[in-house]
Amino acid sequence: MRPRLFTPGPTQIPEQVINAMSRPMQHHRSPEFKALFREVTAQLKAFFQTEHDVLILTSSGTGGMDACVVNLLRRGAKILTVEGGKFGQRWGEIGRAYGLNVISLKVEWGEAIDPNEVEAAVQENPDVAAVFLTHSETSTGVAFDVRAIAEKVRQHSDALVVVDGITSVGVLPFYKDEWHIDVCVSGSQKGVMIPPGLAFVALNDRAWQRAEQSDLPRYYLDFLHARKALKNDNTPWTPAITLMLGLHASLSMILDKGLEYFWDKYERLAYATREGARAIGLELFAKQPSSALTAIKVPQGIDGKQLVELLRTRYGVTVAGGQEHLKGKIFRVAHMGYYDHLDMVAFASAMEMALHDLGWQFEPGRAVATVQSAYMNGKI
Amino acid sequence: MRPRLFTPGPTQIPEQVINAMSRPMQHHRSPEFKALFREVTAQLKAFFQTEHDVLILTSSGTGGMDACVVNLLRRGAKILTVEGGKFGQRWGEIGRAYGLNVISLKVEWGEAIDPNEVEAAVQENPDVAAVFLTHSETSTGVAFDVRAIAEKVRQHSDALVVVDGITSVGVLPFYKDEWHIDVCVSGSQKGVMIPPGLAFVALNDRAWQRAEQSDLPRYYLDFLHARKALKNDNTPWTPAITLMLGLHASLSMILDKGLEYFWDKYERLAYATREGARAIGLELFAKQPSSALTAIKVPQGIDGKQLVELLRTRYGVTVAGGQEHLKGKIFRVAHMGYYDHLDMVAFASAMEMALHDLGWQFEPGRAVATVQSAYMNGKI
Repeated sequence: MRPRLFTPGPTQIPEQVINAMSRPMQHHRSPEFKALFREVTAQLKAFFQTEHDVLILTSSGTGGMDACVVNLLRRGAKILTVEGGKFGQRWGEIGRAYGLNVISLKVEWGEAIDPNEVEAAVQENPDVAAVFLTHSETSTGVAFDVRAIAEKVRQHSDALVVVDGITSVGVLPFYKDEWHIDVCVSGSQKGVMIPPGLAFVALNDRAWQRAEQSDLPRYYLDFLHARKALKNDNTPWTPAITLMLGLHASLSMILDKGLEYFWDKYERLAYATREGARAIGLELFAKQPSSALTAIKVPQGIDGKQLVELLRTRYGVTVAGGQEHLKGKIFRVAHMGYYDHLDMVAFASAMEMALHDLGWQFEPGRAVATVQSAYMNGKI
Repeated sequence: MRPRLFTPGPTQIPEQVINAMSRPMQHHRSPEFKALFREVTAQLKAFFQTEHDVLILTSSGTGGMDACVVNLLRRGAKILTVEGGKFGQRWGEIGRAYGLNVISLKVEWGEAIDPNEVEAAVQENPDVAAVFLTHSETSTGVAFDVRAIAEKVRQHSDALVVVDGITSVGVLPFYKDEWHIDVCVSGSQKGVMIPPGLAFVALNDRAWQRAEQSDLPRYYLDFLHARKALKNDNTPWTPAITLMLGLHASLSMILDKGLEYFWDKYERLAYATREGARAIGLELFAKQPSSALTAIKVPQGIDGKQLVELLRTRYGVTVAGGQEHLKGKIFRVAHMGYYDHLDMVAFASAMEMALHDLGWQFEPGRAVATVQSAYMNGKI
């Protein structure tokens, strides 16, 4: 049995990334590394669809989110967070940890927010300094319409729009500059298909002005330190060098094929997987699904924890279960990463077998066949 | 020409670490990863010579230093920093970034501090909440007697003793508990011989009490989050998974041979290198040298920048130059990491050739021969 990883981060890693990371260690102040850093910085601009520099932090995605809060606001500032899952909630948690005045717009998990609700909240709170959004909410599989929300915010407010693009950049169509997203943070183990350990933060001029005015205390995650080092093709502190080598290899491959290729591919994989699940009577959890992952409801009478465990131990397929109150109620399968449609066929097959083992009644082979035909017919 | 890395972090990486990091990606909440995490946590206790848990952060060593300041102090607290190089200064910089009242004990670069000076400073400032030290100052190659300093502090004060052990743990004899070091931070690209991207922080009960009382705002680097996750064999945020795989492989190898083996080996490599340099008339920079690295003065009439450049481009040997006001005045060669005495012979040979190319007068072959004989005769 070959282990297959289908979790929405970390994802499976392309061979060329593994090879690049196995190269002999190099020093981060060497001319070779600076040349690589310069190329990676240019690649990240294309990846985020921005003309502005993208900072690289050695941290998880959460470190990048923390950095966005602590670098962009003044003490006691009012912020608005849209919370429709574990990662939306994290914006609120971080804001409160820094003593900010957090207004949380709660959305039921599995639902997307109506941009008009954000508009109303911004109008009611004209003193909001920043609005924190999640593009692809990994805990629920929902895609939020950050483009429309950013437009509504911009009509009524000077608030910065800060987007958690951790499972969206490189996965869903995302145009940072064109959509007037002031700040976007992403992580390495998602759309960019390398191991975890790096966060990326893209900021426009408005955001840089805020960073210069911020008086929240910080050091390691300070954007101004990072910007100064970036002008010298470097990071202020020793970066995760092997991950940088992997990043360069992965972005080279991604940009060579073109972002659209991946956006389309993930959409087709997600569509085929959703159709396959539906074909055997399973329900989907997300109302407005992200193609980064699919969240599937555990059917009545089945123990969700047991299902995830069985998939892993008997079929070698690791998916993610539900988080917080969704534990045992949903399971989540990734499409972003080093996957193709045969991986989704394999997932559907393992899912069918595990559900069969647990006594769920359905026509065996329906999901597998449907994933294949849905992919073939395409949706796009 | 084969590239050889002799920088005091990143160091050269053992093959078994590279192999471990090339294994298929695994999920950080999987039973396999938790089992590995449990083992690594136990290994880190032995590595730090402590009975207390050691936290693992996904950050550079500087992130770990930042975490020590922001987690252990209350707003406006008074701290004492001993600053005899770039990394000692960093403690002061971090303290000021968080608005602390920093008393800096300055030591001339290249010198070690007399523990009595720290004693006097602590007696003059009975309200100091923590004393921040550097065990092995990488910018100067000096080892500080943190054991003696910690003892002096403890005689007169309740101040926490916090040690930057970034280039010392696994390199120099270090007994965290026995020496009553309250907190020690280290990094992954040094004594543990894996790529950069992880920091380790070992804390005793006194330090945990302070962490519980601290009111400085933090989120990503929060120790309490990390401790809670550790009890569940995990990290609060996605860790740098590949580095964790490498860490497990490296610590297994290190602890299998025994810490003493490495302490002795590095001491012999450092001794042999110092003798080799002296044999051709070079002067050493550090008065009380660390065996993590040797800092050698660039001889009069030689351009230090050119020397480092020539070593790299003509002989494939990457060493570190001087930092700050020592730029062009010293060069630094690592002993910690995946090195043996033949590597030091190779370094001495490249150094001789580069100095010869630049017109320095000496008896060719003396340094090489001396490195070998000093190593053979041993000092230990």
